[in-house]
Amino acid sequence: MREIVIGGAQMGPIQKADTREEVVDRMIALLQQAKGAGCDLVVFPELCLTTFFPRWYMEDQAEVDQWFEREMPNAATAPLFAAAREAQIAISFGYAELTPEGRHFNTSILTDRDGNIVGKYRKTHLPGHSEFDHDRAFQHLEKRYFEPGDTGFQVWRNMDAIMGMCICNDRRWPETYRVMGLQGVELVMLGYNTPSVNSQDSVEGLEKRLYHSELSMTSAAYQNATWVVGVAKAGDEDGHPLMGGSMIVDPNGYVMARAETEGDELIVHACDMDACSFGKSTIFDFARHRRIEHYGLICSQTGVVLPD
Amino acid sequence: MREIVIGGAQMGPIQKADTREEVVDRMIALLQQAKGAGCDLVVFPELCLTTFFPRWYMEDQAEVDQWFEREMPNAATAPLFAAAREAQIAISFGYAELTPEGRHFNTSILTDRDGNIVGKYRKTHLPGHSEFDHDRAFQHLEKRYFEPGDTGFQVWRNMDAIMGMCICNDRRWPETYRVMGLQGVELVMLGYNTPSVNSQDSVEGLEKRLYHSELSMTSAAYQNATWVVGVAKAGDEDGHPLMGGSMIVDPNGYVMARAETEGDELIVHACDMDACSFGKSTIFDFARHRRIEHYGLICSQTGVVLPD
Repeated sequence: MREIVIGGAQMGPIQKADTREEVVDRMIALLQQAKGAGCDLVVFPELCLTTFFPRWYMEDQAEVDQWFEREMPNAATAPLFAAAREAQIAISFGYAELTPEGRHFNTSILTDRDGNIVGKYRKTHLPGHSEFDHDRAFQHLEKRYFEPGDTGFQVWRNMDAIMGMCICNDRRWPETYRVMGLQGVELVMLGYNTPSVNSQDSVEGLEKRLYHSELSMTSAAYQNATWVVGVAKAGDEDGHPLMGGSMIVDPNGYVMARAETEGDELIVHACDMDACSFGKSTIFDFARHRRIEHYGLICSQTGVVLPD
Repeated sequence: MREIVIGGAQMGPIQKADTREEVVDRMIALLQQAKGAGCDLVVFPELCLTTFFPRWYMEDQAEVDQWFEREMPNAATAPLFAAAREAQIAISFGYAELTPEGRHFNTSILTDRDGNIVGKYRKTHLPGHSEFDHDRAFQHLEKRYFEPGDTGFQVWRNMDAIMGMCICNDRRWPETYRVMGLQGVELVMLGYNTPSVNSQDSVEGLEKRLYHSELSMTSAAYQNATWVVGVAKAGDEDGHPLMGGSMIVDPNGYVMARAETEGDELIVHACDMDACSFGKSTIFDFARHRRIEHYGLICSQTGVVLPD
């Protein structure tokens, strides 16, 4: 048994007017709650230091850049790192990263139990669009404010397990998990900000959107025999609803813990990393069963090419 | 609207002693039922002309070869093709194929409404093992009796839609559907013979096995915005139970029709191929969103390589 008690720290809405210091105070409160629950590792959402700003159309780059972090940790987040180190809890969270070279990424980091950053991931699958879209009920400008991540899907040894990260829309793409699965991943951590409404299909409804999120994570957990922890930023941000549905999924694709609210809410499960072994050594023993000679299009062709 | 009324013709058990002629009579009865239900296309299971013989260990190749078909159609299946042509119903079904060159494949074919074979698929992901395994509750010798398919995951234009096939264990691998998705597939047909018991984990249970089958098909339907029709051979074959759970899944990953028995049972749904368009043009618009530069391991590496 290699047990890691994991907390999924769902966060309720962050309004445009909220400061990073106010947000970090909420994160520390969740961390303290996690400490009380015996957590070894806490996963926070994507872009969890600010409101989900890609819904706002901006042309002034200085205005855009105010949503980004130039270093990590920084003054605003140092108390979070200190609290995590003090509690001996590893953490993962997402933020908008502005590099010294002026590049913009949607990023997540992972620390060890001493608050040292041991992994950094930059979001690969940016959803949405880059120009103002009059046909949408609201904007989703991730392709405008970020460039696609350059890290790929790495994994890291941490806390005697193999861990990887992805972010939000990445979770809907089986390629995401498979690349990590091929590196033996046992725990995939991800955060998301997912609107409760489809900007291109207003009748879709929350229930269907929660189902698609769950389906993506549960299938990937099963098909790669890995734990998956998905954590939402949820609730009403300045009139724009984000869905909840944070969950911890076991390597058989079963939901072991699930958030019930759209607010700050900790979900906890004691995750045995050894539970990955059965699937990885039987039906999903990749070395015995995968047939890469027939997968070529997945890596050679980006879009659809219709048959004659 | 491009509607195809699809019948999933689940089949109950076929005993070792049953003849192909008896089985074809049952298939024709299901076909007539489908005609009455207005079906345009009927999908039958994997290896549907015989019992699931890979559960039996055989060393005599002549004994093995009696389970294989040397041509298709042949004398035993000609009445099925004739009935399908007469009813103007396209069909897909699976059988064990022995080629003139002496090669053995687990194969499915697809016909048009005139009974002409328009597509042939040979199973890629063979589960199980090739030598007698004393540690299993029963044998699953697909790797012994078949070689991996050499067709890859092609698609075909048929009935004004883009159709593809896979077989049984293929359905658990997201690569299967993605290769077809990259060719614009709108309907994936598959048959299966799935034991109700995990030969390597007797306590797993039927419910979990049905869940994993459903999870694999629903997630793939959603993530490729395609219809998926999965059809079981079910029930007790000479003391070995096979699970049912045949289903028709829409391009949003919802189960629209589901078998309730483990016997011969037709499930029917009117499937609009145009329902694939929304997903293919928005969240799963591959050309806009896929990032093949980060998928390399999927095609370059068969098994797991652990990080340092």
